[in-house]
Amino acid sequence: MRGGIDLGGTKIQAVVIDGRFKVLGEHRMPTPKDAGPEGVVWALAEAIRTAAEAAGTEPAALEGVGVGSPGTVDGDAGTVANARNVVPTWEAPVPVGTGLAEELKTPVHLGHDVRVGTMAEFRLGAGKPYKSVLGVFWGTGVGGGLVLNGRSWTGRHAAGEIGHMVIRRGGAKCPCGRKGCMEAYAGRAAMEQEARRRHKDGEKTKLFEIMRDRDRTTLTSGVWARALDRDDDLARDLVDRAIEALGAGVASACNLLDVEAVIIGGGLGTRLGEDYAGKIEKAMMPHLFVDDDPPAVHVAALGDLGGAIGAALLVPPVRRRAGSAARGS
Amino acid sequence: MRGGIDLGGTKIQAVVIDGRFKVLGEHRMPTPKDAGPEGVVWALAEAIRTAAEAAGTEPAALEGVGVGSPGTVDGDAGTVANARNVVPTWEAPVPVGTGLAEELKTPVHLGHDVRVGTMAEFRLGAGKPYKSVLGVFWGTGVGGGLVLNGRSWTGRHAAGEIGHMVIRRGGAKCPCGRKGCMEAYAGRAAMEQEARRRHKDGEKTKLFEIMRDRDRTTLTSGVWARALDRDDDLARDLVDRAIEALGAGVASACNLLDVEAVIIGGGLGTRLGEDYAGKIEKAMMPHLFVDDDPPAVHVAALGDLGGAIGAALLVPPVRRRAGSAARGS
Repeated sequence: MRGGIDLGGTKIQAVVIDGRFKVLGEHRMPTPKDAGPEGVVWALAEAIRTAAEAAGTEPAALEGVGVGSPGTVDGDAGTVANARNVVPTWEAPVPVGTGLAEELKTPVHLGHDVRVGTMAEFRLGAGKPYKSVLGVFWGTGVGGGLVLNGRSWTGRHAAGEIGHMVIRRGGAKCPCGRKGCMEAYAGRAAMEQEARRRHKDGEKTKLFEIMRDRDRTTLTSGVWARALDRDDDLARDLVDRAIEALGAGVASACNLLDVEAVIIGGGLGTRLGEDYAGKIEKAMMPHLFVDDDPPAVHVAALGDLGGAIGAALLVPPVRRRAGSAARGS
Repeated sequence: MRGGIDLGGTKIQAVVIDGRFKVLGEHRMPTPKDAGPEGVVWALAEAIRTAAEAAGTEPAALEGVGVGSPGTVDGDAGTVANARNVVPTWEAPVPVGTGLAEELKTPVHLGHDVRVGTMAEFRLGAGKPYKSVLGVFWGTGVGGGLVLNGRSWTGRHAAGEIGHMVIRRGGAKCPCGRKGCMEAYAGRAAMEQEARRRHKDGEKTKLFEIMRDRDRTTLTSGVWARALDRDDDLARDLVDRAIEALGAGVASACNLLDVEAVIIGGGLGTRLGEDYAGKIEKAMMPHLFVDDDPPAVHVAALGDLGGAIGAALLVPPVRRRAGSAARGS
């Protein structure tokens, strides 16, 4: 059995899977925001402990635990830096890997959340029929993951920043501080900023009413989805704008890499689903250089547990010995 | 000995190299424009025959001949399609590989000109110190080549179309018919179109005077370089615009792929040289996501023969047998 943890800005999702990738136990908890990176490491341990318990085991009995994390992840050093959307003060590298391994008494493997999620979709989800896929995680930001010829491509460490491809030089300000990035139009954080600005300027919208009704303080993917269901003009306009930006950016990436398939994941991507993946596919067409043979476009198939299952795949599988089937892994 | 031919829109360059990549013979001739694709295949044979003669051998004695071609190249089928900048009517696939192999009585290997040029720079030129490079060929159009972890990445066939990454959604019309592509600002064909438009509208420029003085009918890289030397405002303005576009597009590609190095080649790239590569590097900075560790940027080092030498590398090296050194390959 292997453990996997998906560390997000709002929640921590842990799973324990068997050798056939079946989920034997899982646990979800909110990401602690007030106890610094150390508090987060403690919570990661707690989450996998509870998931292991649900699977009838304990962390020390696992082959290992994988962690998918945002920020700058150095898998070799076992550190995570610049994870400001987890804890605002998280800048310097934190030894998440060693800290967690000591706590759990089992090997810990770190990976970048989006790369890990893409690999999970490639091996077990919507990317299974293909050899090369581009994962596009459309959420608070827009992250990307690449599998080329069956292997994860991470460049020197930081490959996959599709959200910061320029689609309009000199265009809208991005949360990253630069201008004209795809994320400046398509990231949920940028979309919310623009919605608040326009709302303040007098544009009518149900977005913030829905947000309050659902006891939220930010425009979550669910809030956007509900506003679209209610034909909210501002929501429709900003989502259309996001889709046009995604079309240009994802097509640009395909012109460069000519992958077989694009997998749309992330909070907004999975929440808005097939219809909107179809809209992104359509928005790509005017920009695709080889438009008579476009890549396949799919919605991520593994759902909420994809990130955690992908993290578990970071743990190298133990080679089966003859007669080891009884171990159940 | 291996032969290599670089098929371009205006000229055909052939080389014969030895096992240490030394050029033993070379020949350059204009691309025939009036005899259809068959005339081009004939000229390819003529070019390599003359280069082989200069090397003191004949085509049938070569280990093989590689051809780098523009258009849609299917190396397995040995065909080239859509090579309209070679012969305007060249659309359907032409069996360049088999035709040439019969004519020369030696195996022929086809590759895409820009991918082949990138591989040559990677193995023998400015990319030698690196494992992953992005080649940017700045000429009539803007082509791209990728070497990732030591291997050429061609996707499903058509990877590398960096010129058609969108850098300004809804922006300038590209020669490809789409809008806002990097090539719409940075390709020499698009730059000439804009220069002619502005000149017609009354802007002063020495570009066309230099063109006529040099007996040209189009704005070649040499014409642009001379106009810059003479401080021509329009030339300066359009080259600056091209560089800003290259900065955004190349940085976007680096954000996605995080390669170690970028090699700037092509007619304009090599003609304008180090100074302008430095300007492109500077124009990338505002758009690079990991801007504290930018990729290295170099000018292509192999010069005019790079494409032909790269094409020769398409021929698989013959394994040396003991005592075979006398063959001189």
